[in-house]
Amino acid sequence: MAQKQFSVRIYIDADLSQDKGVVLDKTQAHYVVTVMRRKIGDEIVLFNGRDGEWVGKVQEVRKSHALINLISCLREQAAEPDIHLVFSPVKKIQNALIVQKATELGVSELIPVQTLRTNSDRPREDKMVLQAIEAAEQSERLTIPIIQQTQKLEKYLAKMEPDRALIFCHERHDSKDPISVLSGLTISNKFAVLVGPEGGFSDAERKMIMSCDNSHTLGLGPRILRAETAVVSALSLLQAVRGDWQ
Amino acid sequence: MAQKQFSVRIYIDADLSQDKGVVLDKTQAHYVVTVMRRKIGDEIVLFNGRDGEWVGKVQEVRKSHALINLISCLREQAAEPDIHLVFSPVKKIQNALIVQKATELGVSELIPVQTLRTNSDRPREDKMVLQAIEAAEQSERLTIPIIQQTQKLEKYLAKMEPDRALIFCHERHDSKDPISVLSGLTISNKFAVLVGPEGGFSDAERKMIMSCDNSHTLGLGPRILRAETAVVSALSLLQAVRGDWQ
Repeated sequence: MAQKQFSVRIYIDADLSQDKGVVLDKTQAHYVVTVMRRKIGDEIVLFNGRDGEWVGKVQEVRKSHALINLISCLREQAAEPDIHLVFSPVKKIQNALIVQKATELGVSELIPVQTLRTNSDRPREDKMVLQAIEAAEQSERLTIPIIQQTQKLEKYLAKMEPDRALIFCHERHDSKDPISVLSGLTISNKFAVLVGPEGGFSDAERKMIMSCDNSHTLGLGPRILRAETAVVSALSLLQAVRGDWQ
Repeated sequence: MAQKQFSVRIYIDADLSQDKGVVLDKTQAHYVVTVMRRKIGDEIVLFNGRDGEWVGKVQEVRKSHALINLISCLREQAAEPDIHLVFSPVKKIQNALIVQKATELGVSELIPVQTLRTNSDRPREDKMVLQAIEAAEQSERLTIPIIQQTQKLEKYLAKMEPDRALIFCHERHDSKDPISVLSGLTISNKFAVLVGPEGGFSDAERKMIMSCDNSHTLGLGPRILRAETAVVSALSLLQAVRGDWQ
């Protein structure tokens, strides 16, 4: 894909501003110095989700930390699409793929939900945060998506804002074509994309979802898609029609 | 996702027709009998890419094979979109994901191409065929995509049919929005989606691609996507705008 100008890009919690020094912790310093072989004087890129993207110079290297001096702002912080991904946790590897892909595709929040046919251990939200940080660093996002605690599907639906469009992904659904469905969502620019478990939603769940205000069914073609494929397909269509790919 | 009526679905090379008996080989019989625990009298689903999809009854079970009696045709064979996926092979796991996802998303041919920055061992086309068969069985496709031998990018481009639209995936490309690009492809319904290696195409390659007749650049948003994500994104958009998701 597109060639990157800087190949070391790190998410850090500290504030970022002109000429400031920031400290990388032991893990980050190890990554920059030992894995990526950056030396004193080399440049790396930093972002914190608030202050844009900065280029900084490695100034000091220790085993326990590294010091980076911020040089200039590469990109200002900018508003990002407000897209929730509501998904049933799946097996470990697939779950990691969902977090990675949703982050690459610019979702603002990931909400794991328990459904009748959810067939997985309770997902580790702490691991999902690390997976999202890694994907944000590599995809050159300016933010990290929020990972919510796993909750019951009913609970998420009950507290959903009234002006958020719920996009219910449903393969083999003989609905209008997906592009018209998405371009017809005129209520607001807040979206929740809902992808079910491998066995599908139960009839009762489907009824509950479809009876929500602002619920719209999105067909994803005549073939059965795996959960992580449906996530990428639906988010790509949404970003292209209503998000920041336009 | 959608619940399946039959959960054992097998690709077989034999001709399929009413009341015919077909023989599953040792591996297939093991899958049906030992893994999926089907017994004599149980129903399974078969397809061969030519004769539609059939339901058959297990009639005889041996260690070396199983005999299935075909009962009725569930779906007639139907024409599928003519979509080539032209991609630079990547690491083993990512490559398997590309084959799996492209099959789920209905491509007709997969063409691995060598580019300047292709950084992988020569992919095993025989393994890719098995991955494609598995994905076709699970996604309820009626065909198996063709896996071409790995070839040089130049070679593929040089022998491309003049009426096939080449869709060149390019993140961060400041082009028109992707939906208009795809809906503007009016030459034919034959497409080739081209996704590059992780490091991107070289300048010379980019020039060569963009100078092809019928080459169209497709922007995939402001973030950097992994190769397998770009594959799913581009194919989903194409199927939604020009393929069988409409």
